[in-house]
Amino acid sequence: MRQSQLFTKTRKDISAEEVSKNAQLLTRAGFIYKEMAGAYAYLPLGLRVIEKIKQVVREEMESVGGQEMLMTALQRKEVWETTNRWDDEVVDVWFKSELKNGTEVGFGWSHEEPITEMMKHYIHSYRDLPIFVYQFQTKLRNELRAKSGIMRGREFLMKDMYSYCIDEAQHQAFYAATIEAYLRVFARVGLKDQTFVTYASGGAFTEFSHEFQTITEAGEDKIFINKEKNIAINEEVLSEETLKELGVSRDELTEVKTAEVGNIFNFGRKKCEEMGLNFVDSEGTSLPVFLGSYGIGISRLMGTIVEVYHDEKGIIWPKEIAPFQVHLISLNQDERAEALYTELTAAGIEVLFDDRDMRAGAKFADSDLIGLPLRIVMSNKTIEQDAVEIKLRAQDECQLVLLKELTKEKIETLLS
Amino acid sequence: MRQSQLFTKTRKDISAEEVSKNAQLLTRAGFIYKEMAGAYAYLPLGLRVIEKIKQVVREEMESVGGQEMLMTALQRKEVWETTNRWDDEVVDVWFKSELKNGTEVGFGWSHEEPITEMMKHYIHSYRDLPIFVYQFQTKLRNELRAKSGIMRGREFLMKDMYSYCIDEAQHQAFYAATIEAYLRVFARVGLKDQTFVTYASGGAFTEFSHEFQTITEAGEDKIFINKEKNIAINEEVLSEETLKELGVSRDELTEVKTAEVGNIFNFGRKKCEEMGLNFVDSEGTSLPVFLGSYGIGISRLMGTIVEVYHDEKGIIWPKEIAPFQVHLISLNQDERAEALYTELTAAGIEVLFDDRDMRAGAKFADSDLIGLPLRIVMSNKTIEQDAVEIKLRAQDECQLVLLKELTKEKIETLLS
Repeated sequence: MRQSQLFTKTRKDISAEEVSKNAQLLTRAGFIYKEMAGAYAYLPLGLRVIEKIKQVVREEMESVGGQEMLMTALQRKEVWETTNRWDDEVVDVWFKSELKNGTEVGFGWSHEEPITEMMKHYIHSYRDLPIFVYQFQTKLRNELRAKSGIMRGREFLMKDMYSYCIDEAQHQAFYAATIEAYLRVFARVGLKDQTFVTYASGGAFTEFSHEFQTITEAGEDKIFINKEKNIAINEEVLSEETLKELGVSRDELTEVKTAEVGNIFNFGRKKCEEMGLNFVDSEGTSLPVFLGSYGIGISRLMGTIVEVYHDEKGIIWPKEIAPFQVHLISLNQDERAEALYTELTAAGIEVLFDDRDMRAGAKFADSDLIGLPLRIVMSNKTIEQDAVEIKLRAQDECQLVLLKELTKEKIETLLS
Repeated sequence: MRQSQLFTKTRKDISAEEVSKNAQLLTRAGFIYKEMAGAYAYLPLGLRVIEKIKQVVREEMESVGGQEMLMTALQRKEVWETTNRWDDEVVDVWFKSELKNGTEVGFGWSHEEPITEMMKHYIHSYRDLPIFVYQFQTKLRNELRAKSGIMRGREFLMKDMYSYCIDEAQHQAFYAATIEAYLRVFARVGLKDQTFVTYASGGAFTEFSHEFQTITEAGEDKIFINKEKNIAINEEVLSEETLKELGVSRDELTEVKTAEVGNIFNFGRKKCEEMGLNFVDSEGTSLPVFLGSYGIGISRLMGTIVEVYHDEKGIIWPKEIAPFQVHLISLNQDERAEALYTELTAAGIEVLFDDRDMRAGAKFADSDLIGLPLRIVMSNKTIEQDAVEIKLRAQDECQLVLLKELTKEKIETLLS
């Protein structure tokens, strides 16, 4: 894409109340726009990142058998009343409104109840199970405060998956496969070393649930980790009993601040029992379905990545989710840069081409702020040597590469 | 995809209140699920159609220079007050709620005002113009009645594009290009012959606006057309004056029922003047920006296509937006059908593979209901001749095709 065509420009006018680093950088670089506290629009560069994260997540959910669908934002009161979660005293993040005839409606802050209600039409027998479904859905949550940029929004994008199984064994097999799929997601988006499967409070149905927590000072959670033993415990379940059960002592654990980027949850048969979602097993017995839910905060993940990968100059995108792989900057070399842009794009490389008429310093500052993995500069000086200057955003060194050697393979090697 | 893995099944239990043909067929075939009147979830097959329609629209919007982004559902009262459209007396489809601190918020029924407000950060000079942006957004509209299935929803998916130009000439060039892009969209989704660029009421800023109206008995509009002269007039602007201006007489026009699948709208400088979105032109003069808006109802388009393309047995999807191109049905030929499924899929053909253990009649009925363009049946009888039976959903005739002749090219020829 030509940067001259991109309607966003880097900004300096950030609202003083924008205290979170991810929102500051993403706003300045033209990825997001703040509509109100906790609700951000995704501008062209930001939407590209969101779509790339979604695609990584989609591939991994499909790999464990997930089927993509899309529930509604509008939700029915009576569905949530079956589990006593319509009440604002019980769930304090509802946005509600009403139809013209006075019927109350809610806006989806979660979809566990509606999707389980829907499944009554599709689940009757053990032969219908297991079912794994997921969606990318805009969730609306009336949070009291929203000061963490896109890490805690009143409106945010979430991938939620639900598993409907006949019994605990079938459930556990999927649950275990999903933990692996989640770890692949976090590795692919660049957070492998920072993200831990964490024991957390399990609610009413199981002893523990599992969270995926990423180390960042911007996180709202506190966990205790031991990297060698690969153990992580949310402070909410840190007790003598837990330590004993997991075979680790308090001294072996280090306290870190983290952001919860994913969670998986075992409902057992309880939720489906409350809602009346039953199936007939192979012996003719009617049983409530065994339910699991599996979330990844897509927009929160984007914010967390920015918190982890930035420096004083701007964002440093991991390559798999960068909006473009290459930032091609022309300094008064328009014709030859045009030719190179056309050539790279034709080779299937995603290039943002800074073809703007602007001084070099401003172009470099914008490039560092936007943070694409590989910068290629073409100037009079480089062209004298039939070369371009190459620099990885994550490193300081530049190198000259001859134009004839700048193949797709070369660029992929540089990026890897 | 294996049909045995698809969690949806064809249904017969349709709510008696579901009077619209598109919702009946799409629900029975497992494409959609009704959460409440006017709000439908998209099940795996339905979401595939939605995504295909989006991709057609995306390609055509990019072809005229559109940049994709995504605004928020949550909207601010004060933004809409600038144009006097917050008032429920003026706009009667608002869903509203409030934040914990009592601040009123609205849910996006349109995004003209918020996106124009946002553009104040990005538009300052004539050098910043033109800008063309679009989004695929879930719109929420508190409709009094919602009885047309996915053709008029309280929650529905829309592509809305906005053009910001320096003057009428720049606007008209884009407006004309967009009319052509829209016609390409409707042609690609199979509605070329049924869809007319229609003169309609223009509101305050221009004499006419343009609607894209598709002939269907399920439509809510009435237009008057002359196919030879390629003229279509919405009844709301049918007057002696209009007829004279367009050079057509009433006798030459035929009345038809239609659904509005798209519209384009010229705001002139009025909206930006009201909202204070100005730019400095090449002579240093400050002027309000020239605004256009361009909508396509994505989910309505899906519903309209079903209304146009169905028979008593089910849906007949046009190929570019069918969830899969081929429905491969195995009748007790599991191993060889498996091999064919693998082969076709590897060749890049989208196949729904009915590998279920079920009698032939039920499989054929499901296949007709779901409505994929090409059905391939493998049975003992066909295998005796090293062949499969091929049938287009839109035609009655079957033909035997030798397996060795069933290449990708052959299938593409059959589909074209």
